Amino acid sequence: MNNFGRIFRISIFGESHGKSVGITIDGCPPGIKFSEKDMLEDISRRKSGKKGTTPRREPDLPDIISGVFNGKTTGAPITIIFQNQNLRSKDYSFVKDIPRPGHADFTAERKYKGFQDYRGGGHFSGRLTLALVAAGTLAKKIIKPMAPSASILEVGGFTNIEEGIEYAVKNNDSIGGIIECRVENMLIGLGEPFFDSLESYISHLVFSIPAIKGVEFGSGFESAKMTGSKVNDVIIDDKGTTKTNNSGGINGGISNGNNLLFKVVVKPTSSISKSQNTYNFKSGQIEELKIKGRHDLCIALRVPPVLEAVTSIALADLLLISRAY
Amino acid sequence: MNNFGRIFRISIFGESHGKSVGITIDGCPPGIKFSEKDMLEDISRRKSGKKGTTPRREPDLPDIISGVFNGKTTGAPITIIFQNQNLRSKDYSFVKDIPRPGHADFTAERKYKGFQDYRGGGHFSGRLTLALVAAGTLAKKIIKPMAPSASILEVGGFTNIEEGIEYAVKNNDSIGGIIECRVENMLIGLGEPFFDSLESYISHLVFSIPAIKGVEFGSGFESAKMTGSKVNDVIIDDKGTTKTNNSGGINGGISNGNNLLFKVVVKPTSSISKSQNTYNFKSGQIEELKIKGRHDLCIALRVPPVLEAVTSIALADLLLISRAY
Amino acid sequence: MNNFGRIFRISIFGESHGKSVGITIDGCPPGIKFSEKDMLEDISRRKSGKKGTTPRREPDLPDIISGVFNGKTTGAPITIIFQNQNLRSKDYSFVKDIPRPGHADFTAERKYKGFQDYRGGGHFSGRLTLALVAAGTLAKKIIKPMAPSASILEVGGFTNIEEGIEYAVKNNDSIGGIIECRVENMLIGLGEPFFDSLESYISHLVFSIPAIKGVEFGSGFESAKMTGSKVNDVIIDDKGTTKTNNSGGINGGISNGNNLLFKVVVKPTSSISKSQNTYNFKSGQIEELKIKGRHDLCIALRVPPVLEAVTSIALADLLLISRAY
Amino acid sequence: MNNFGRIFRISIFGESHGKSVGITIDGCPPGIKFSEKDMLEDISRRKSGKKGTTPRREPDLPDIISGVFNGKTTGAPITIIFQNQNLRSKDYSFVKDIPRPGHADFTAERKYKGFQDYRGGGHFSGRLTLALVAAGTLAKKIIKPMAPSASILEVGGFTNIEEGIEYAVKNNDSIGGIIECRVENMLIGLGEPFFDSLESYISHLVFSIPAIKGVEFGSGFESAKMTGSKVNDVIIDDKGTTKTNNSGGINGGISNGNNLLFKVVVKPTSSISKSQNTYNFKSGQIEELKIKGRHDLCIALRVPPVLEAVTSIALADLLLISRAY
Repeated sequence: MNNFGRIFRISIFGESHGKSVGITIDGCPPGIKFSEKDMLEDISRRKSGKKGTTPRREPDLPDIISGVFNGKTTGAPITIIFQNQNLRSKDYSFVKDIPRPGHADFTAERKYKGFQDYRGGGHFSGRLTLALVAAGTLAKKIIKPMAPSASILEVGGFTNIEEGIEYAVKNNDSIGGIIECRVENMLIGLGEPFFDSLESYISHLVFSIPAIKGVEFGSGFESAKMTGSKVNDVIIDDKGTTKTNNSGGINGGISNGNNLLFKVVVKPTSSISKSQNTYNFKSGQIEELKIKGRHDLCIALRVPPVLEAVTSIALADLLLISRAY
Repeated sequence: MNNFGRIFRISIFGESHGKSVGITIDGCPPGIKFSEKDMLEDISRRKSGKKGTTPRREPDLPDIISGVFNGKTTGAPITIIFQNQNLRSKDYSFVKDIPRPGHADFTAERKYKGFQDYRGGGHFSGRLTLALVAAGTLAKKIIKPMAPSASILEVGGFTNIEEGIEYAVKNNDSIGGIIECRVENMLIGLGEPFFDSLESYISHLVFSIPAIKGVEFGSGFESAKMTGSKVNDVIIDDKGTTKTNNSGGINGGISNGNNLLFKVVVKPTSSISKSQNTYNFKSGQIEELKIKGRHDLCIALRVPPVLEAVTSIALADLLLISRAY
Repeated sequence: MNNFGRIFRISIFGESHGKSVGITIDGCPPGIKFSEKDMLEDISRRKSGKKGTTPRREPDLPDIISGVFNGKTTGAPITIIFQNQNLRSKDYSFVKDIPRPGHADFTAERKYKGFQDYRGGGHFSGRLTLALVAAGTLAKKIIKPMAPSASILEVGGFTNIEEGIEYAVKNNDSIGGIIECRVENMLIGLGEPFFDSLESYISHLVFSIPAIKGVEFGSGFESAKMTGSKVNDVIIDDKGTTKTNNSGGINGGISNGNNLLFKVVVKPTSSISKSQNTYNFKSGQIEELKIKGRHDLCIALRVPPVLEAVTSIALADLLLISRAY
Repeated sequence: MNNFGRIFRISIFGESHGKSVGITIDGCPPGIKFSEKDMLEDISRRKSGKKGTTPRREPDLPDIISGVFNGKTTGAPITIIFQNQNLRSKDYSFVKDIPRPGHADFTAERKYKGFQDYRGGGHFSGRLTLALVAAGTLAKKIIKPMAPSASILEVGGFTNIEEGIEYAVKNNDSIGGIIECRVENMLIGLGEPFFDSLESYISHLVFSIPAIKGVEFGSGFESAKMTGSKVNDVIIDDKGTTKTNNSGGINGGISNGNNLLFKVVVKPTSSISKSQNTYNFKSGQIEELKIKGRHDLCIALRVPPVLEAVTSIALADLLLISRAY
């Protein structure tokens, strides 16, 4: 539901067009320097405004309202809030009858019996990833020197981002992408099989990020075509360094000290300017839908800091768990 | 760690060469007909003995030792145990110094400080999936008419299984595979975003299955190369039926009533007869390792019933949760 | 830690002298009418200002910042925040060296390694019960027609509250009290043994309330002196009505439909104006401590709405769980 | 439900007259010496056969079926099973229509819709405390040098046990009792407020023990009649030693290093030989019920090792959690 973790635990709340989005982090060790400033860089990396993202911008100023005293974490829950300021007057009520293809409009309407906040995606909005990024900056401090770094491998099938964006602009359509996340300086021993394998933990959080539809570790799907003698990573020294890294740094669900490596796929943004068909539940007819406004053409561009954040959150919790016993 | 779920909860235990493997299922509704016989078919589908799997066979007889009375579940926890009978006298102690490539030998040694049961993979053994299959047969009853069905799409890069196995036999090597899971008769509304999206829940359990290294829903990684206008599934009637199913039956982390569709990749079996190099932590040298005995050439062949089981377990829990509010 | 519950789940945050205190409620069914106004009555009942409580008053205005749309719950997490406005300039830094007897000053200092927010009790402050009361008003709506009602049985050993308060005033000392909670219209079947018995669930939350040091259900400690033939409650009709209610409405950890009955003891307020001894960790000497300011003489007076709140929260969660299977 | 704990986690299963009762312990650190022999002393202390307890005896032999290798815990889940051997042929089916006063017969029938195993109390049987005692012996090793010790303060109102039992025998009735638990060598800092205070954690588990109806820490209910200046425990040295121990060794929900002290009340055994009235749901009449067989006259006599066990389990989990951050 809306919290995750065993020791380092996050609880997320808020809606796109409500008063705010925010997150509470429980189980954070006391004594960690933490202030609003520490979040700004990652928040900025997530921001829209670049080519291929929506021109709408919000200040995205974090406000720590609990759990930090004299500039350091206290051991009590840390709540971070972002006021929603740039609320558009746009009318979203149509989505209840005319669900937008690829959106959660239809499933939310059914699951929450019509009571969901449908404005701008409500609680399903990508805006909630802002809260993830905020919590991630704290998690990053805890897991040092482990350091997740995510980068875009391709968008819309193009390995050159510029080219992909131009293609999208030209076609008045959205595109997806593939992001790789790499964590250097991995500790050995993180991951709690049987059920809380490192892959399980990371994928659980990764699939909370809207628009992610796949994840693979190390050689991933490619390994289906390889033989065991090729896929098995040979250990070459007493630190456990392996010659290859087809496992993505994980054996038996536990980190082996080599780089953690995984890729995710981000589907093309659901909101497109292009006309689409959808079912009108009021009229009982399939009809044409044109979503107004300007949209992210490639939401994948904004995913890297979010991916780093959830990876850091997963590692922070597993690190604290590993210290317990 | 070793349990999963919020209402329908499973706790797994046991080792490959200990006394037994087993599982406890808590939160199961009372009044469901359940007996050892109900498990035999799926257990049999998971069994080795077919071409490409190890010739070693165990009877795999389930024993329900609690939670069932007069042939029906009582509401109390259901514990199912499988005695380990076919224990090989083989000496496994070498793996502590000479970890097998691709196995959990090295990571388990470090994480559990040398106290892990290293015989036959111990608690990391694929034998624990037997317990998952057992719990899955009960979950399947709860989620009816939803019905997961998993099938092999390719092994070792061959879409013809026979061909793949022959290739492996000929090369004295192991191969991986890709399995697809499809669930028909899906209910609308399963999945608990923000963090317990349907994808999150399924992937969490899927990555508990040894050797799984990737998962993708619907068009998955392929969608990175597609445009939004192609990926968005158009709703065509008042049941929410969509023309295409690129989302794999999930929008916003919630089932939309269309078939749930996802694929997983199974890496090639780590244990191969072929000689491999590995590091000897005692001698401090890289040395040649030849793993004796006969192994599964393609563990992917045994994964479909396990995949159905974990999918059923995930859906059973989400179904019960959805009834709560 | 700082959250509780399986389906209806609360996460609490904030400090006495920080920016705010608040609570997030997850797992609340959609469609429940809820606004700030609904909380005012219980918040008012908890307020200080009456004889025997501190004259300091805060406006205690709740602000719902997520999870409610068009006046109704949406199914998304509901966060309620109270700004801290009446912050006293008083210096609390002395408590790190000179812990106040009966307070958490010493244990918090050690547990959180000196990083805790020590001002006014920080995260341990009774002010956090304001957040519990807020969440309780929502829980009360969910559990209707079940209706918890708490009342004071005695303070300082006096069954007449006036008399007890006068005794405290006269002696310049604080007093404790005993509160009874009764829930009418109980449903049959709430409570999830083995571990989540109704008594377990309620006591878990009850002992979160600062200053509570004991709880007893039904005849409680008195039943140690009784015989089974007296304690056993005889069922007298097909609704399960019992002639007596020594069990407090609970058999085997499950509600039996009769009134739920339990009592708690509230110890005397730790903060007293009277001079006390304590250890000065800086000087290494026992010294006299006089805590300035005006304090609650009898915090028990403010506990009834808090007790109703946690009882409602426990029942709301157990009710939703009971619907799941 | 049927598991408890965050890191050191227990899952209980089994019924009085089923095949077995057992428990799985997850999250136990590796490398702890543990064998069946280690459990025998506490199991023996819980046994019946002494005056005032039922003459029926079972061998109660524990069988560790997973998680221990070469005599030490491995880090994998430890499952301990007790076969039920002394199954009485007695017919219990009457309890579905004629619920025994004070038992869970009525509530279980309603909650589990008639599917519960009603024989000998089924999953509600005191026999499950055998599994708690087993897990407790392992927990005791983890928490050393902390050492819980429980003793009987009074039975049936008599501080002399012999006298109490004679009273019960003479009156052909059952009696209750009060047990005190004391933990010496307490560490400072255990307990995780806000919700997982040390009192919350212990009381949660304590109320899982059948027949417990009240718990009080330190001066408990007595403190309602005392003043703050008397109840506040004065710290007298730099270890945090207090002059008195009215708090039971807990401030703000966190252990303060002084002895942990609490008392519980055990109600008189529900099963009595004496004739009682109850409602016959078939005939719709109140009728006389005489429960055959020989019963515990004072179940309190068997509670001390169970109380030590759950206290140890609570402390083990809180100790491991405290190491995490």
